[in-house]
Amino acid sequence: MTVPVPSNPDNTRLEDLQQVLQQGGMRRAARMLNALQPAEIAHLLESLPPKERELVWNLVEAEYDGEVLTYLHDDVREHLIRLMDTGELIAAMGSLDTDDLADMLQDLPVAITQEVVKSLDQQRRDRLEKALSFDEDSAGGLMNTDTVTVRPEMTLDVVMRYLRRLKDGLPDITDNLIVVDRKGHYLGVLYLTDLLTHDPEDTVAEAMTLDVQAIPASWSAREVATRFEQHDLVTAPVVDEDGSLLGRITVDDVMDVIREEADHQFLGQAGLSETEDMFAPVLLSARRRALWLGVNLLTAFLAAWVIGRFEATIQQVVALAVLMPVVASMGGIAGTQTLTLAIRGLALGQLSINNARWLLWKEMAVAGINSVIWAIVVALVAKLWFHDTDIALVIGAAISINLLAAAFSGALLPLALERFGIDPALAGGVILTTVTDVIGFLSFLGLATIFLL
Amino acid sequence: MTVPVPSNPDNTRLEDLQQVLQQGGMRRAARMLNALQPAEIAHLLESLPPKERELVWNLVEAEYDGEVLTYLHDDVREHLIRLMDTGELIAAMGSLDTDDLADMLQDLPVAITQEVVKSLDQQRRDRLEKALSFDEDSAGGLMNTDTVTVRPEMTLDVVMRYLRRLKDGLPDITDNLIVVDRKGHYLGVLYLTDLLTHDPEDTVAEAMTLDVQAIPASWSAREVATRFEQHDLVTAPVVDEDGSLLGRITVDDVMDVIREEADHQFLGQAGLSETEDMFAPVLLSARRRALWLGVNLLTAFLAAWVIGRFEATIQQVVALAVLMPVVASMGGIAGTQTLTLAIRGLALGQLSINNARWLLWKEMAVAGINSVIWAIVVALVAKLWFHDTDIALVIGAAISINLLAAAFSGALLPLALERFGIDPALAGGVILTTVTDVIGFLSFLGLATIFLL
Repeated sequence: MTVPVPSNPDNTRLEDLQQVLQQGGMRRAARMLNALQPAEIAHLLESLPPKERELVWNLVEAEYDGEVLTYLHDDVREHLIRLMDTGELIAAMGSLDTDDLADMLQDLPVAITQEVVKSLDQQRRDRLEKALSFDEDSAGGLMNTDTVTVRPEMTLDVVMRYLRRLKDGLPDITDNLIVVDRKGHYLGVLYLTDLLTHDPEDTVAEAMTLDVQAIPASWSAREVATRFEQHDLVTAPVVDEDGSLLGRITVDDVMDVIREEADHQFLGQAGLSETEDMFAPVLLSARRRALWLGVNLLTAFLAAWVIGRFEATIQQVVALAVLMPVVASMGGIAGTQTLTLAIRGLALGQLSINNARWLLWKEMAVAGINSVIWAIVVALVAKLWFHDTDIALVIGAAISINLLAAAFSGALLPLALERFGIDPALAGGVILTTVTDVIGFLSFLGLATIFLL
Repeated sequence: MTVPVPSNPDNTRLEDLQQVLQQGGMRRAARMLNALQPAEIAHLLESLPPKERELVWNLVEAEYDGEVLTYLHDDVREHLIRLMDTGELIAAMGSLDTDDLADMLQDLPVAITQEVVKSLDQQRRDRLEKALSFDEDSAGGLMNTDTVTVRPEMTLDVVMRYLRRLKDGLPDITDNLIVVDRKGHYLGVLYLTDLLTHDPEDTVAEAMTLDVQAIPASWSAREVATRFEQHDLVTAPVVDEDGSLLGRITVDDVMDVIREEADHQFLGQAGLSETEDMFAPVLLSARRRALWLGVNLLTAFLAAWVIGRFEATIQQVVALAVLMPVVASMGGIAGTQTLTLAIRGLALGQLSINNARWLLWKEMAVAGINSVIWAIVVALVAKLWFHDTDIALVIGAAISINLLAAAFSGALLPLALERFGIDPALAGGVILTTVTDVIGFLSFLGLATIFLL
C-alpha cells in the first residue's frame, strides 16, 4: 500500500494538458484526461476556447460523456451536444440518474428527446415524468429519488442486515436512512453514526433523530440552500403537502445552487447570464452584448437629452461641462454601494419589507454625512480650479442632492423591483445609474441656470 | 410519534419575532428564539438594526452565545462582543471547538484573549496553538481535529465494536473513518456506507477507498472548495508535507467559504467589505463609504481634467458637452462586461496566463463587431439630433476606439492586478472606468479639436 501523493491544485492541469497536446501526445492527453473526475473534465473543457475544446471533448471516453455534460454550464453543454450524433447522445443520457436526465432533456433537440425517452424502461420513464413535473429551481427539482427508508419498529440489527443485502450498496452521499411509517409519511432520520454507535438491539424509533424537518417540494432552491447552511445538513428529506416522502436533496447539489446564485448576482450586474461561456463563439457573444449596450445607450441618451436642455447655460459657463461628470459619477458610486448592500440583503433573506425602513433610514443618514463632506471638498476644488464661488456653491449643492437621491433609490429600488417581479441583480444597476445621472445633471445644470446666468 | 410539520421558510421569522416583541411578549420571543439553530439566530440578528439587535441578543440563552457568535459576520460579531462582560465571554468561548475558538480569538480584546487562553486545559491550549499556526484561509485553518481513525488490518467487526465504545459518539458530519498506518500517515478512508454493507469479517484494507486524496494543509480555501465541488465530497482528510494526518475538513465549512468568496466578489466591486453589516452604525459606515467615494472622486477629477484640456473646443461646439457622457458610458458598460467575465474566470481557476491570450482575442473580436454597430447607431442619432455630419463621424470614431480599449483593458486588467498582488474584485472596476472615461473623453474631444475646429 502506498501513501497517496497530495495532488496539485487544479490550476496547473490546463498547463500540463496543453503541453502534452502541443507535443502531439494525444494518447497521453487522453489518459491524463480520463483519469480525472467528470467535474474536473468539465472544468477543463470550460477553460478551453472552442477549437481546443472540441479536440479535448473527443478524447473523453464515451462512458463519461453523460456525467461530464451534467457539470457544464448551459452554453458549453449546448456547444458539445451539437457535436454528438443521436447514438452517442442516447448512450450518454442512458448513463444518467433520472434527476440529471430531467435537467439535461431541456437542452436537447426535440427529436433526440423523443428518442431518449423511447429508450427508457417504464420505471425510468415514470420517474422522469415525475422529475419533470417539478420546477427546476424548487426543492422538488433538486431532489433525487434514491432514498433508502426504514421503519421505526425495526431493530438496528435488522437494519444492518437489510443494508448488507442491498444489491447496489448505499447511494453516494448517504449520512442517514429515512424513517417512514407504513403509508410512506416522513417521521425522522436515522443517522448512520447513530446506527453504528447504538446498541444493535435498540429499535429505529429509539435511535432516530426527530429534529431534522423535511423540506416541502415547493420550497425554492434558495430556501433549500439557506436551510442546509443554517442546519449544517448533508442530506435532507423532501416531502409533499401531506408529508409523504418524495426523495432527498444532497449537499453537492446545494453547493451548485449557492455557486449559481452567486454567479447570477455577480454576472447579472454586468448584464451577463450565469450560463455565459468565457469562450463563447464571437457572433453569439457580440449579439448578447449588443443587446445590453443598446439598453444602456438608451439611458445614456436620456442623460444626454437632459444636458441638451441646458446647452445655452453650458455655452455661457463652459466650466459646467468640465465638472458635470463629477456630479454624476459621485452619485453613481454612492448609489451602487447602497444598492449592492440591499441586493445582497435580499438574496440572503435578511432584507424584507419589515426592515427596509431601517435600512433606508441608516443609508440616508450615511448619505447625509457624506453629502456634507463631499459637497465641501468638491466645492473647494471647483473654487480653486475656476476661481468662481458661485460655481463652487452650485456644484456643492448638486453633489449633496445627488448623494441623497442615490441612497434613497439604492435602498428602495431592489425591493420595488422584486415586488414587480423584475430581477434586481439584473436591472438594479442600470436603473440606478440612470437615476443618478439624470438627477446629477438636472440638479447641477438646473441650479447653474438659476444662479449663474 | 407525530409527523413533523414542514416549517416555514426563514423569511417569515423576522416578522413573527417583531410582532411578538411589539406586543411586549419578551418571554415568548425568547422561547421562539432559543428554539432555533444557532445559525438561524445569527441570521435573525443580522436582519435587525443595532437597538433591536441588542435587545434580541439579550434574549439568547448563554449556552448558545458562543456558537451564535461563530456564525455572524465580523462586524456584527464585534458589535455583540462589545456588549458582553469578561465572564460571559469566557463562558461563551469555553463552549467552542478549538478551530472556531481560533477564528474568534482574533476579534477579542487582548486582555480577554489572555483570560480565555488561561482558562483552557493544557490539551486544548496545545490544539489552539496548532490551529493558530495555520493561515485562516488555508486548508489548515479550515480543518477540525476531531478525526476518528482506524488501521487497515482491523476487521470491520472490530471497527464496529470500537465505535460503539466511543464515549462521545461520532462527531457531526462523519461520512467516513480515516485509515492511517502506525505512524499516522494517511492511507485512505473507510466510508460508513462501506462499513455497513461489507461482510463484518472483511478487513478495513479490503473495504476502504483509496481514491480520496488527502488535502495538503497549505492549500488555499479556494482550492479546497474547488476540490469539494468537483469530487462531491462531504469531508476530506488534511495532511502535512509528509502525508501525516492533521485533521479533516467538513462540507459545512466549505459552503461558508463559497458564500464568503461570492460575497467578497459581489460586494468588493462596490468597494464594500464582505464583513459589512447591513445595519452598521451610521458613523462607521459613513467613514468607510467616504474612503471609497474619495478614491472615486480622484478618478472623476482626472476625467474632468481631461475635459478641461478641451474647454476651448467645447465653447465652440457645445453639442460635444451634450454627447460626451455617451462615449464614456458605452465604454464603461462594455469594459465592465469583459472585466466581470475575466474576474469570474480567475475566481473559478478557469482563467490563467495560459488561456488569457484566447480570451483577449475573443473579447477584441466581440468588441470589434459591437464597435462598428454602435459607432453607426450613435453617429446616426447624433446626425439627426445636431444636423452635423462631422460631429456624427467624430463620435462614431470615438465610440469605436473606446469599445476596443474597454475590451483590451477589461480582459487584461484582472490578470495584471493579480500578478501585482492587488485584488481584482476590489480595484478592477475603479481602474477600468477610469481608463474608459479618460480614453472616451480624450478620443472624442481630441478628434473634435482636430476635425471640427
